[in-house]
Amino acid sequence: MICIPSANDRPSRKDGRIFPLSGKGSNVSEGEQSRSLPDERLPLVVIAGFMGTGKTETGRALAAMVGLDFADTDRIVEEREGLSVARIFKEKGEAYFREQEEAVCLELAERTGLVLATGGGVPAGRKGFSALASKGQVFLIEASVDSILDRLGADASRPLLRSDQDDGGEGRSRKREKIEKLLEERRPIYHRIERRIDTSGITPQEAACRIAAALSLPFRTVPVRVPDSMTRIETGRGLLCRLGERLQAVVPASGYYLLLSKNVRALFFDRIEASFRAASIPWKEIAVEDGENGKSLEQAGEVIDQLAVHGAERDAAVVAVGGGVTGDLCGFAASIYMRGIPVVHVPTTLLAQVDSSIGGKTAVNHRRAKNLVGSFHQPALVVSDPCALASLPEREIAGGLAEVVKTAVLGSPGLFEFLEKELSREPKRTMRSVAFLERCVAECATVKGGVVERDPFDRGERRILNLGHTLGHAIEAVAGYGRLIHGEAVSIGLVAAGRIAVSRGLFDRTLLERTRSILEACGLPVEPPDLDMNSMIQAVQLDKKKKSGKVRFVLPVAIGGTKIVDDVTDSEMRDALSC
Amino acid sequence: MICIPSANDRPSRKDGRIFPLSGKGSNVSEGEQSRSLPDERLPLVVIAGFMGTGKTETGRALAAMVGLDFADTDRIVEEREGLSVARIFKEKGEAYFREQEEAVCLELAERTGLVLATGGGVPAGRKGFSALASKGQVFLIEASVDSILDRLGADASRPLLRSDQDDGGEGRSRKREKIEKLLEERRPIYHRIERRIDTSGITPQEAACRIAAALSLPFRTVPVRVPDSMTRIETGRGLLCRLGERLQAVVPASGYYLLLSKNVRALFFDRIEASFRAASIPWKEIAVEDGENGKSLEQAGEVIDQLAVHGAERDAAVVAVGGGVTGDLCGFAASIYMRGIPVVHVPTTLLAQVDSSIGGKTAVNHRRAKNLVGSFHQPALVVSDPCALASLPEREIAGGLAEVVKTAVLGSPGLFEFLEKELSREPKRTMRSVAFLERCVAECATVKGGVVERDPFDRGERRILNLGHTLGHAIEAVAGYGRLIHGEAVSIGLVAAGRIAVSRGLFDRTLLERTRSILEACGLPVEPPDLDMNSMIQAVQLDKKKKSGKVRFVLPVAIGGTKIVDDVTDSEMRDALSC
Repeated sequence: MICIPSANDRPSRKDGRIFPLSGKGSNVSEGEQSRSLPDERLPLVVIAGFMGTGKTETGRALAAMVGLDFADTDRIVEEREGLSVARIFKEKGEAYFREQEEAVCLELAERTGLVLATGGGVPAGRKGFSALASKGQVFLIEASVDSILDRLGADASRPLLRSDQDDGGEGRSRKREKIEKLLEERRPIYHRIERRIDTSGITPQEAACRIAAALSLPFRTVPVRVPDSMTRIETGRGLLCRLGERLQAVVPASGYYLLLSKNVRALFFDRIEASFRAASIPWKEIAVEDGENGKSLEQAGEVIDQLAVHGAERDAAVVAVGGGVTGDLCGFAASIYMRGIPVVHVPTTLLAQVDSSIGGKTAVNHRRAKNLVGSFHQPALVVSDPCALASLPEREIAGGLAEVVKTAVLGSPGLFEFLEKELSREPKRTMRSVAFLERCVAECATVKGGVVERDPFDRGERRILNLGHTLGHAIEAVAGYGRLIHGEAVSIGLVAAGRIAVSRGLFDRTLLERTRSILEACGLPVEPPDLDMNSMIQAVQLDKKKKSGKVRFVLPVAIGGTKIVDDVTDSEMRDALSC
Repeated sequence: MICIPSANDRPSRKDGRIFPLSGKGSNVSEGEQSRSLPDERLPLVVIAGFMGTGKTETGRALAAMVGLDFADTDRIVEEREGLSVARIFKEKGEAYFREQEEAVCLELAERTGLVLATGGGVPAGRKGFSALASKGQVFLIEASVDSILDRLGADASRPLLRSDQDDGGEGRSRKREKIEKLLEERRPIYHRIERRIDTSGITPQEAACRIAAALSLPFRTVPVRVPDSMTRIETGRGLLCRLGERLQAVVPASGYYLLLSKNVRALFFDRIEASFRAASIPWKEIAVEDGENGKSLEQAGEVIDQLAVHGAERDAAVVAVGGGVTGDLCGFAASIYMRGIPVVHVPTTLLAQVDSSIGGKTAVNHRRAKNLVGSFHQPALVVSDPCALASLPEREIAGGLAEVVKTAVLGSPGLFEFLEKELSREPKRTMRSVAFLERCVAECATVKGGVVERDPFDRGERRILNLGHTLGHAIEAVAGYGRLIHGEAVSIGLVAAGRIAVSRGLFDRTLLERTRSILEACGLPVEPPDLDMNSMIQAVQLDKKKKSGKVRFVLPVAIGGTKIVDDVTDSEMRDALSC
C-alpha cells in the first residue's frame, strides 16, 4: 500500500520524499499523484547510470509526467538501515550495502507502475539488476565527466569519491580521476543497456520527457466523426510529453502555433517544448490571457494578429494548451483565421478534459452576454493527459467531477458504477489518482463524443448535455460568478433536476440518492447556498425569455437516460431547491 | 423595336418618358432598364382604374421593379395625334378619342413584357379592354374619392372634370360630385376586374410592390447542397418585391434582421418593407456601414451587439441586403452570433449576384490583411433580383461582367456563347438589359454553385474560381486599390492567364481572342495600365511567400476547362503582361 505525502509529514531530508510504507518496511515514495488503482499493465521503469547524472531528479520528474510512483534504491536502503549510504559504507562496508541494495532490487522487480532510480553501482550487481531488467524497461542516464563533476559539486556524502586528504584546490582533479576510473570499470556493464539518454546540457525535466516519450505508454483514442471533419480524442498518461509526436501523426501542418497563458506555460512548457524538439516540428509560441476577461472578440483579434505576424497559413494548426477559457478563445480564433485552420486542444483542467475540449463549441464573451459569439469548429485532435491535472486545487478537481457525474447520469451506467465504487473509500485520495482521472476522462470522451457525433450542431440530442445546467446557471448567476465555481452549481442543479424528476415519478429516488452520494463524496455542494429563491426563479425566467418563452429542462429518467421537458413550473423549481 | 432613353433625347413633357418607336409611330416608353431580349413568357400587365388613382406612377414603378417596359394609353394617343388629351376632347370630341384609345389597346394587347397604364375610361370601351384582358393580367387601382381629389389637385387638364364656370371655393365640391357620378357609372365595369389594389394611404411604390408580388413571375432556383446545409439560390426579376414571401417559404425563423446600409436602404427599403408587410413576418432593421472600412471585426461586433439588443435568438435569421462588403460582413456576423444563425443574402450589385453571394465565404478585414478573418457559412437562401441592378453605374456592371466572363471560360460553353452573341451588337445596351443580366446571374449561380457543392471548403476544385485572379490581385494592388475596380483587374488577369496558356500550347489562340473580344465589348480593360512590371511580379511573389512558396495559376485549357499549375515563371508573367 502506498501513502500520500501531506505537507505535515514531508521529511526535511534533501531528497524530500520518503514515506513509510506498510509491510516489510520497504519504502517507496510517490510521483506527483497517487495511484489508487493498481494497473498491471503499467510499466516498471528503471533509471540506471553513474552517480551525478541526475537519476533521482530525472526519475522523479518522469514519475510525475507519466503518473507512476517513484522510488530510489539508495533511499530505501537508507530508510531500512536508519543510516545514510555514507554511514553504511563507513560502518558496515560496501559489500553489506550492495547486499541490501540487491535485496531491494529483487523486491521491486515485482512492482509495476513504478519509476525506480537505482544506485550507480546497481548494474554491477548482476542478480538484482537482471531481475529489474527482465521485468522493467531500463534507461541509462549518461553525462560527461565535467557535468558529473558539476552536479556532484561539494557533495561530501558520496562514499566512493571520498578522500581522506584535505579537499583543497586539487580536490576537483582528484575527483575527476576517481570518476574516470570508476566510469572505465563500469563501462562494459553500462553498455549492455541499450536505451540511453545523455543528460549533459539538458535539464532532468527534459531527460524525463525523452524517457516518457520513449515509453510509448498505451493511450485511448475516441474518434468523433462529424460531417466533413473528424476529431481524435486521445487520453492517457504522459501524452503531454508526446505532444509533438501526436501532432505530427494526426494533424500534419506547415507550422504549429502553441497558444498558452503564462500560468500554464510555467507548468507545462518544458515537456511540450521537449516533445516538439524530439519531433522536429516547426512551431511558434503565442501568449494568451487567462480568465473570462481574456475571452473577448478583441483577444481573438490579438491572437489573429499574432498568427498573421508569424505568417501562419491555411495549412498551419493552432495548439491551445490550457483550461476552458483558452480552449474557447483559441478554438474561436482558429475557426475564423483564414476561414478556419485546424485547432488541437490540449486541456489542462479536469473540466476542460471531460467537457469543454470535446464537441467543437468555441466562444468568446460579448458585452451583452457570456459566450454570445462563437462557432462550431471541431478540433482535429484533443490530447488529454491526466498527469497535467496534478497541480489543480482540490476544488477544481471536484468541479470537474461534477461534469463527470452528470455525464455518467445522462449516458453511462458503467461510469456511474465506477464512480460510486471508487469514491466509496478515501474519495479525496481517489480524486487525485491518475488512473481514476484517466478513466473518467476517457469515459466522458466516449459519452460526449457519441452525443456530439449524432448532433454536432446542438439541434437536438446534444441538449441532454445541459442536464443540471438550467438551474445550475441560475444559481451561479444569483450567487455571483466567483462564489460558486461552475461545477459546484452544476452539482446543485443536477440534484435539483433529479428531485423534479423523482417528484414527477420519472426517476427512482434511490438513484437520486446514489447520485447525491457520489457528488458529496467529491466534496461538492448539493443544496443551494443561502440565496433568494425568487431571484433564482427569476434568473431561470430571464433565460426563458431568451429562449422563445420555454425553459428547457433535462430530467434524468434512469442512469443513462434523460427526458427533455419544457413545462417545469416555478413551484416545482422551488420545491427542488428547498429540500 | 424599342429605343433606349438617353439624357439628350429625354423630352421635357411632364410624364418625361416618351420615345419615338419605329414602325407606325406607336410610342412605348421603357421601364428603368431596357429589354434587349424578347421573352415571350413575360407578361402583359394592365393597370386600370379611375383617374387620379395613380395608375401611371404605379405602372412605371412596377415596370422598374419587374424589369418590364412601360406604356400609357393616354400618352400614346397624345403622341400620335400631336395633341394633349384635353385638346383632342375639345377639338375632336370624346368619341374620337375613345376610337384612338381602342386602337392602341388592340395593338398593345399583342405585346408581352409590358406594363400598360390605361386611361380611366378604357374598361368601358369593351373591345379594346377585352383584348387586353384576354392576353394580359389586369389589376384595378382603387382609391377613395378624397384621395382622388387630393391627387388630381389643381390639374386642369382632365377634360371630364372640366367646368366652364369659375373654379372658386366651390371647385372641389363640384369636382367631387362629378367624380362620384363618374365612379357610380363605371362601378359595374370596374367590378368585373377581380384583382384590385386600394391605393388610399399607400404610395405608388407600395402599390407597385403588391402588384409585382401578385404577378408571381417565374424565377430560377439553383440548389447548392453542402454537408449539413443547403442553399437555395433564387434568381429572377421582381424577387425583391417578394422577399418576405421567399423568406417565409424557405427560411422559417422567429424573426428576420434586415441589415443594410444607408445607400442601399434609399434604393430598396420601400419594396422590401412592403414585401415584409405583405408576408406579415416579424422583422427588425439594423444599419451597417458601406465600404471596405465597414468590413472589420469591430463592425461585426457592432452587428452582434445590435442583434443582442433586439433579442435575436438562435432561430432568427439575418437578411443582408447590399453588395459584397455587406454580404461578407453580415455573413460573418451571422456565422459567429450564438455559434451561427442562418443568413440570407440579397445581393444588389452584379458582382455580388454572380459571385460573392454564392459559396458561403464570409470575411472581414484585419489590420494585417484584407479578408484575413472569416468563415464558411453557407447562406440558407440567396435572392438575386436583376432589377436591383438598374441604378448601378456602367463601370460596376462591366466589373461584374468580368466575373461572368471568367465563369463562362472556366465552366460554361453555353454562357460563353450567350455572352458572345448578345454582346456582339449594342453591348452597352445589352449590359443593362434585365433579361441579359437575369440569365448571366442564373448561369453563374449554376456554375459556381456546382463547384462549391463539390468543394465547399476551398480545398481543391474550388480554386479554379481564381482564374484571372492571381495576376488580377497583383495588378489591383500595384495600381493602388481604387484606380482599377476588382472586375477590371480580373479582366486583365484573365487575358494574361489566357496568354500564358496559349504560349504553353494549352489554350487555343482563337478562344483567347474571343474571350478578349467579349471583355472589350463590356468596355473592360484587357491590358494592364501603365504599371511597373517589376512591382507586379513582386506582388505575385509576395503572394507566393504567403502560399508556402508556390504561386498557383489557373490556366484555361478550353471554354469550360481549366488546369491548375504552380510553375509559371516570372518571364512567362512578363510576356503575358506586356503584349
